[in-house]
Amino acid sequence: MYDVTKIRADFPILSRQANGKPLVYLDNGASAQKPQAVIDAVTKAYAMEYANVHRGLHTLSNIATDKYEAVRGKIARFLNAGSEDEIVMNTGTTEGINLIAYGWAMPRLEPGDEIVLSVMEHHANIVPWHFLRERQGVVIRWVDVDATGALDPQAVLDAIGPRTRLVAVTHMSNVLGTRVDVAAICAGARERGVPVLVDGSQAAVHGPVDVQAIGCDFYAITGHKLYGPSGSGGIYIRADRQAEMRPFMGGGDMIREVSKDEVVYADPPMKFEAGTPGIVAQIGLGAALDYMTALGMENIAAHEAGLRDYAAERLGGLNWVQVQGTTPDKGAIFSFMLEGAAHPHDISTVLDKSGVAVRAGHHCAGPLMDHLGVSATCRASFGLYNTTDEVDRLVSALELCHELFA
Amino acid sequence: MYDVTKIRADFPILSRQANGKPLVYLDNGASAQKPQAVIDAVTKAYAMEYANVHRGLHTLSNIATDKYEAVRGKIARFLNAGSEDEIVMNTGTTEGINLIAYGWAMPRLEPGDEIVLSVMEHHANIVPWHFLRERQGVVIRWVDVDATGALDPQAVLDAIGPRTRLVAVTHMSNVLGTRVDVAAICAGARERGVPVLVDGSQAAVHGPVDVQAIGCDFYAITGHKLYGPSGSGGIYIRADRQAEMRPFMGGGDMIREVSKDEVVYADPPMKFEAGTPGIVAQIGLGAALDYMTALGMENIAAHEAGLRDYAAERLGGLNWVQVQGTTPDKGAIFSFMLEGAAHPHDISTVLDKSGVAVRAGHHCAGPLMDHLGVSATCRASFGLYNTTDEVDRLVSALELCHELFA
Repeated sequence: MYDVTKIRADFPILSRQANGKPLVYLDNGASAQKPQAVIDAVTKAYAMEYANVHRGLHTLSNIATDKYEAVRGKIARFLNAGSEDEIVMNTGTTEGINLIAYGWAMPRLEPGDEIVLSVMEHHANIVPWHFLRERQGVVIRWVDVDATGALDPQAVLDAIGPRTRLVAVTHMSNVLGTRVDVAAICAGARERGVPVLVDGSQAAVHGPVDVQAIGCDFYAITGHKLYGPSGSGGIYIRADRQAEMRPFMGGGDMIREVSKDEVVYADPPMKFEAGTPGIVAQIGLGAALDYMTALGMENIAAHEAGLRDYAAERLGGLNWVQVQGTTPDKGAIFSFMLEGAAHPHDISTVLDKSGVAVRAGHHCAGPLMDHLGVSATCRASFGLYNTTDEVDRLVSALELCHELFA
Repeated sequence: MYDVTKIRADFPILSRQANGKPLVYLDNGASAQKPQAVIDAVTKAYAMEYANVHRGLHTLSNIATDKYEAVRGKIARFLNAGSEDEIVMNTGTTEGINLIAYGWAMPRLEPGDEIVLSVMEHHANIVPWHFLRERQGVVIRWVDVDATGALDPQAVLDAIGPRTRLVAVTHMSNVLGTRVDVAAICAGARERGVPVLVDGSQAAVHGPVDVQAIGCDFYAITGHKLYGPSGSGGIYIRADRQAEMRPFMGGGDMIREVSKDEVVYADPPMKFEAGTPGIVAQIGLGAALDYMTALGMENIAAHEAGLRDYAAERLGGLNWVQVQGTTPDKGAIFSFMLEGAAHPHDISTVLDKSGVAVRAGHHCAGPLMDHLGVSATCRASFGLYNTTDEVDRLVSALELCHELFA
């Protein structure tokens, strides 16, 4: 039984007010709030169990190392990786995708080689590839979405040509909520000998992920959207792809030996983890994954599907609201415009006066904004603790907005 | 009045035991413990004031952004940077030096160009330059230290030749405690037109730093050694060097516009900060810098100088202990070997039984270990909360070790 009232009580910030109104936090697509279990894990780590990891032989260092390394297994199980050695821990999706861009793509792609992206990628899954375009003449091939925001897997596969070296695609759009059939893309790409990187920043938050069933080569997640600390995260890299990669950042921990004349690198995954990591953030991520797993990812998905359907119905009833992204199985992420002249920033500000936190802007998705023909949208994005009452609060606040700006 | 008893009460972990003995934490060189003010700042940020930064217009996002961005100014003042725009916030020194390697050095250095390093650099200030050696034929010129562990600034300047493009040098050795006269190195290097990167990971913890007085181009610090959260940090990059750099990691926040065909990057420092940062870790670093500043960096330095002198005297009285690094103005960092066969790892384990946490290993300083002719040392590294009683506890534990292994 999914008891959202009880769940909400786990998140201290949800009891606060914003502008004198109870907070309605609908900016989960940007970052999620943290349950007390995560805050406690962080506090305990700093207050009683802190030391650097991998480097000491003393009691605290051993405790910290055990707690930190346990998170690698938690991430592996969360994604159903074949081995925890296929998990590189990092600060989030941006670092994860940059690792692949610098460590895998940069040394192998030649001028004229191609990377296939969907038009609804987040800048984290665009700018690293633009670097390769600017710096070494790689060509980016873009695949459009249809009017509902759907991405046809076949369209992605059709974009693969003889020079294609990588497909990089989101599992769920952070703007439209569109779910992408990444398994179909991976199956087709594999037939064509092309690796696939999946940006799981949003999808992994909202339902079960199985990287082996998907068949991807790379799958990036980010802790701060997963109810974990900012600066935590990980990326799944299948073992055969790890073997093809050179290191990205250099420093302690990722080496076996360093002399004046040479470096012998550590084996993966340590080869890709340089320096003192975000030890405590990562321990907090472990607590967040435990929290989500205890609720059950299927249960979270079912709860959010209910929110999605209810929000779609309520927003659909407002004929002056235009929602972008209408695929039926989408995540509970609603980008919208109001009829009339109100800029999304103004709408966001008015909603905030009612205690409703939404985001307004380009959502780090410039090419999608161009595709939609807008410079910005408002976005209400739901999480595991949101309620249908909060959908009603959003709608009431929008109605106030409509009165103000109509 | 520097009241170390009162200060110790600010650090909850210092009241715990290790192996049934009161903890004597002498692994500060690897990472420092956190005062309650830092833990509270982290807790408060997650429990009451959390949202993503730079991206929202709602109340929580504005609060989080203000708190996060305030840290840039705190770091700037801590280092006496000319402007807070010269501070790039990041996860620590490793990322900071990699930013310079990838963003400044990689696009400008040609095969045969040279980088000058001291032999006592940490791997974080070695491996990024080995990458350039391996990948694009850059030559590393090493400068030795003398028998006391001192680095002669003139020896560094003498290593500069017509192909030298960078000097990268630590401000304080993490193994020997040696302070380096980086101001003299910077003055001479500037005359020769060569930029200087200073690794301030250790030095910034133990006394005041003034990057303008030093005259360096780059100065990297790491939050977890500064009594702040793991995964926090920053690097000073003088404005003229920022202008020479291309971005390192790509993603959100570091762009002004992204389209299918091009990217317009944000101005520095944002150009060098991609994706959702370690928001709360960085807020915690701000609290740590406030804590240190309130104690006074000069006062911390004076306290630690007392510890250094006392520890040097006590350890000097044990004729079976060999200390590496004997410069008189060194930091309170003592690497040592015991006479006889005991491996540093065994010594560390025995000390741990007495509650004394020291580190054993190569200390991420392979070339220095080669220079010293050892594979590992034990290291006791002191911080602002350590006491002369703890020096005595260390000495007693070493005496026990000596009995066991002699």
